[in-house]
Amino acid sequence: MEGTSDPYGGHNGSEILPPMQAVVVEAPQPAVVHKVMAQPAQSSASKMKGKVKETFFPDDPFRSFKGQPLKKKCLMAVKYVFPVLEWVPGYSLSLFRSDLIAGLTIASVAIPQGISYAKLADMPPLTGLYSSFVPPLVYTLLGSSRDLAVGPTSITSLIMGSMLQKGVSVSPSAEPTLFLQLALTSTLFAGLLQASLGILRLGFIIDFLSKATLLGFKAGAAIIVSLQELKDLLGIVHFTDEMNLVTVMASVFQHTDEWSWQTILMGACFLVLLLSARHVEGVAVGRTFASIKDYQVDGNKEMMAIGLMNIVGSCTSCYVTTGGFSRSAVNHNAGCKTAMSNVIMALTVMVTLLFLMPLFVYTPNVVLGAIIIVAVIGLIDLPAAYHLWKMDKMDFLVCLCAFIGVIFFSVQQGLAIAVGISIFRVLMQITRPRMIIQGNIKGTDIYRNVLQYEEAQRVPGFLILTVEAPINFANTNYLNERTKRWLEDESFSGNKQTELRFVIFDLSAVPAIDTSGIAFLIDLKKPTEKLGLEVNVACTCESNWRGHGENTTSERQT
Amino acid sequence: MEGTSDPYGGHNGSEILPPMQAVVVEAPQPAVVHKVMAQPAQSSASKMKGKVKETFFPDDPFRSFKGQPLKKKCLMAVKYVFPVLEWVPGYSLSLFRSDLIAGLTIASVAIPQGISYAKLADMPPLTGLYSSFVPPLVYTLLGSSRDLAVGPTSITSLIMGSMLQKGVSVSPSAEPTLFLQLALTSTLFAGLLQASLGILRLGFIIDFLSKATLLGFKAGAAIIVSLQELKDLLGIVHFTDEMNLVTVMASVFQHTDEWSWQTILMGACFLVLLLSARHVEGVAVGRTFASIKDYQVDGNKEMMAIGLMNIVGSCTSCYVTTGGFSRSAVNHNAGCKTAMSNVIMALTVMVTLLFLMPLFVYTPNVVLGAIIIVAVIGLIDLPAAYHLWKMDKMDFLVCLCAFIGVIFFSVQQGLAIAVGISIFRVLMQITRPRMIIQGNIKGTDIYRNVLQYEEAQRVPGFLILTVEAPINFANTNYLNERTKRWLEDESFSGNKQTELRFVIFDLSAVPAIDTSGIAFLIDLKKPTEKLGLEVNVACTCESNWRGHGENTTSERQT
Repeated sequence: MEGTSDPYGGHNGSEILPPMQAVVVEAPQPAVVHKVMAQPAQSSASKMKGKVKETFFPDDPFRSFKGQPLKKKCLMAVKYVFPVLEWVPGYSLSLFRSDLIAGLTIASVAIPQGISYAKLADMPPLTGLYSSFVPPLVYTLLGSSRDLAVGPTSITSLIMGSMLQKGVSVSPSAEPTLFLQLALTSTLFAGLLQASLGILRLGFIIDFLSKATLLGFKAGAAIIVSLQELKDLLGIVHFTDEMNLVTVMASVFQHTDEWSWQTILMGACFLVLLLSARHVEGVAVGRTFASIKDYQVDGNKEMMAIGLMNIVGSCTSCYVTTGGFSRSAVNHNAGCKTAMSNVIMALTVMVTLLFLMPLFVYTPNVVLGAIIIVAVIGLIDLPAAYHLWKMDKMDFLVCLCAFIGVIFFSVQQGLAIAVGISIFRVLMQITRPRMIIQGNIKGTDIYRNVLQYEEAQRVPGFLILTVEAPINFANTNYLNERTKRWLEDESFSGNKQTELRFVIFDLSAVPAIDTSGIAFLIDLKKPTEKLGLEVNVACTCESNWRGHGENTTSERQT
Repeated sequence: MEGTSDPYGGHNGSEILPPMQAVVVEAPQPAVVHKVMAQPAQSSASKMKGKVKETFFPDDPFRSFKGQPLKKKCLMAVKYVFPVLEWVPGYSLSLFRSDLIAGLTIASVAIPQGISYAKLADMPPLTGLYSSFVPPLVYTLLGSSRDLAVGPTSITSLIMGSMLQKGVSVSPSAEPTLFLQLALTSTLFAGLLQASLGILRLGFIIDFLSKATLLGFKAGAAIIVSLQELKDLLGIVHFTDEMNLVTVMASVFQHTDEWSWQTILMGACFLVLLLSARHVEGVAVGRTFASIKDYQVDGNKEMMAIGLMNIVGSCTSCYVTTGGFSRSAVNHNAGCKTAMSNVIMALTVMVTLLFLMPLFVYTPNVVLGAIIIVAVIGLIDLPAAYHLWKMDKMDFLVCLCAFIGVIFFSVQQGLAIAVGISIFRVLMQITRPRMIIQGNIKGTDIYRNVLQYEEAQRVPGFLILTVEAPINFANTNYLNERTKRWLEDESFSGNKQTELRFVIFDLSAVPAIDTSGIAFLIDLKKPTEKLGLEVNVACTCESNWRGHGENTTSERQT
């Protein structure tokens, strides 16, 4: 019976309620009543089980285990934990050739980015390279995605750096060892948190970060990161610790005397060079990669893999890593076939660490700054923002708030503001649910929204209201006010013939109702009776309104 | 066109979307398609106006102003601000007689309660009486309720006392003047907050405190308050400052040597006396009062009145006051007709203040303790809790969490936990929306939930899915997983004849859809096409999916 599982809040067993009358309509032809089935009795425990299943296992990751012999089950379980076993047995030379090219390509991106991002997080450049070496190997064993290229990212680096400096007030220049220790400790805890969210199957929490929020957040972060690099691009020595737009710009223009034209020229040349190289592929990659993804990825399983990757990473001098979007896009576009490309990247980084490090350590800051700016500039997706504006102004507003919050306040506050607005909007959809008036389509027994269907006509004497939301404590007051307003509008029409006599609440689109909702329906009786009206409830669904002697429906067939 | 106002988040203008095909069903008889009307073009500004109206003015308080001459409008506006003008002109001697009796009755409750509650808030007894004198007069002018008796209440007194001691760490015994000043200042700010919530029409925020939350919260607060009074009832001198159950009970049993049998005996006698007197009316009053309320009260207007009452109160040595439920019940039961009963009460309290104060100031603490316990014990409503348990286990859980949070942690934390759970539950209803499979009722063109209607039969080759929630960022991942599970179940039936060919998403119960929702519907094409299925969208409502060349509906008439 999983078809109508009602994962949340369905009220049940209303033995206490007085039975409502079935609507008997004086139809020109004899009316046929389609009875609503009573729901089979179900214990609270089994209902709770259903809810827990829908909440934590909506993708039913263990469904293929069902009905398999024990040996097969064990093998599947091992493969579930180590997805590497899925592809290693069938691995061929031609696959390896693709992965080799992809791996070398992402390594060429990962090495300069590793060093640059480490600098962004105020960590030693070595840590950035370590982080592109150990975590990819762990991910190869545990991760299920075949395109994801893991390593440090600009936003995590920025957040970690600012968090340690602002939150714990540790200066990376005065106490470098303490700063590094704290960074590794927070990496460990980030990993523990990610892994436990995955194990507890709480990955759905991430759903509350809508695409619109992320769009604004990423663009804001890109600007904040770029602003930080102005220091290196202009050659400023005395620079602010703050990150918001106003303070940074003030700091830039207070120190015009420190601007060095040599640095600016060099930075500009590098920027132009890198940007023009990036123009050959950038946007296209992002698009193709986002739309192609035809293997199943279990989000919670991925979270566990990334969490474990960070736990192992923190023990081997790596700071927070995750799957970078731009790097994964490069990986995909370079033709990667399996997670082997991560191994190739890790080995290339290892070779660099062993033999080529001296060449990289002395990369001028201005070059690192240019690399970072080019890497983050791709996070600003103006066409997507314009698309949001065209599609949905509220989503655009959420995006804008995230953007403004990040650039004018801080990364954390910007994110908090945008998530808050998103959740508030969702709550508002519940708090102010849509109510529509239904009319009959002549010659049929279909009832439809009168404003939506030209053919739908109001039935004289009837007001058929449909509520399209769960009825609960958050909206009963509104429903009450709204209904009263309609009743007042309707009952003073003056025309005896079309005078309102019946009000029908069509609850077919109400998935759940709580005790406040029940109280609302019962309390409606008083004001409507005062107006000489009769209120009826129709099409209640099985999980809402079970247990009256007679089930109620307004359906009739003529 | 207010019938279908979609207060939140309705996405609009999807010019970017590829037009979806209309479902043409090979019906035995020629199919009749009922077209969905295109929504009249509406600017973003006018849509926003509609949303703002539904959010902040759902009760449309100024509707009666429409079409009136200016002079009448001004008069109505004055009456709106001072509801006292509604009843004063028609006030008669017989109304006054009723109000006199009610006023004297509530005064007899208000005087001992005023002194006791002031003690609970660690304020001088005089402040408690002042608070039953000035605020009722202000409320008479500004309030619209005819039953509400205003004054200090046990819970506000408790919260204010604990807030000042814990939050600001001011001891009422060491720094009595500072404590009093802080209390009056916080009363002023409470009043300002209430008044601005009312003026900004944000009163709906209170809707998030569900009845279940309040039930648990009140019961917990009653127990916390009663525990505080154990000090006086047992005659303990050294008592803890903490308020949670464990610490207070530990403190009670650590100081058994301080227990005084004389105090205990006196306290017990008073308790029995007061409880037996309270038994004559208590429960019945509460019930009748709650169900009778046939005049309209504008919640936001009331909030403004109560806010102004506290602002004025704070300037005249009164601490936080509000409409007390038990006192209002007494007022109603004593036959009050208008807010005049509050004036009578205020005058009686004034006489007490002027002439009888010496008699009251030396009321023994044990008597005050007994008065408080008797007043708060009525807040514990076990039958209502049992009713919740029978009706809705989740609501009972919310109630229980509020209760446990209050008695084991603190009043504020208990409230925060319960509100958090309530909101989480609402979010979960959105995050895990119900999806149902529709079937055709034979011989009709009605489609209904197959699990709910015995007669509803699945149409071979079709999977008709109805989503019953707004489709947005918070649930697109879930809808995706859930749909995939269904498709996998359905597409391996093996039977060629009943093989699934079409999937129809019936969106008639979807009040709003955001950009993530649109992306979900578009992204569905890929996995379903791989399975050889065709996906169609039906019954989209006007606010969701406007602007394709051809509107889509699956309705057909045979």
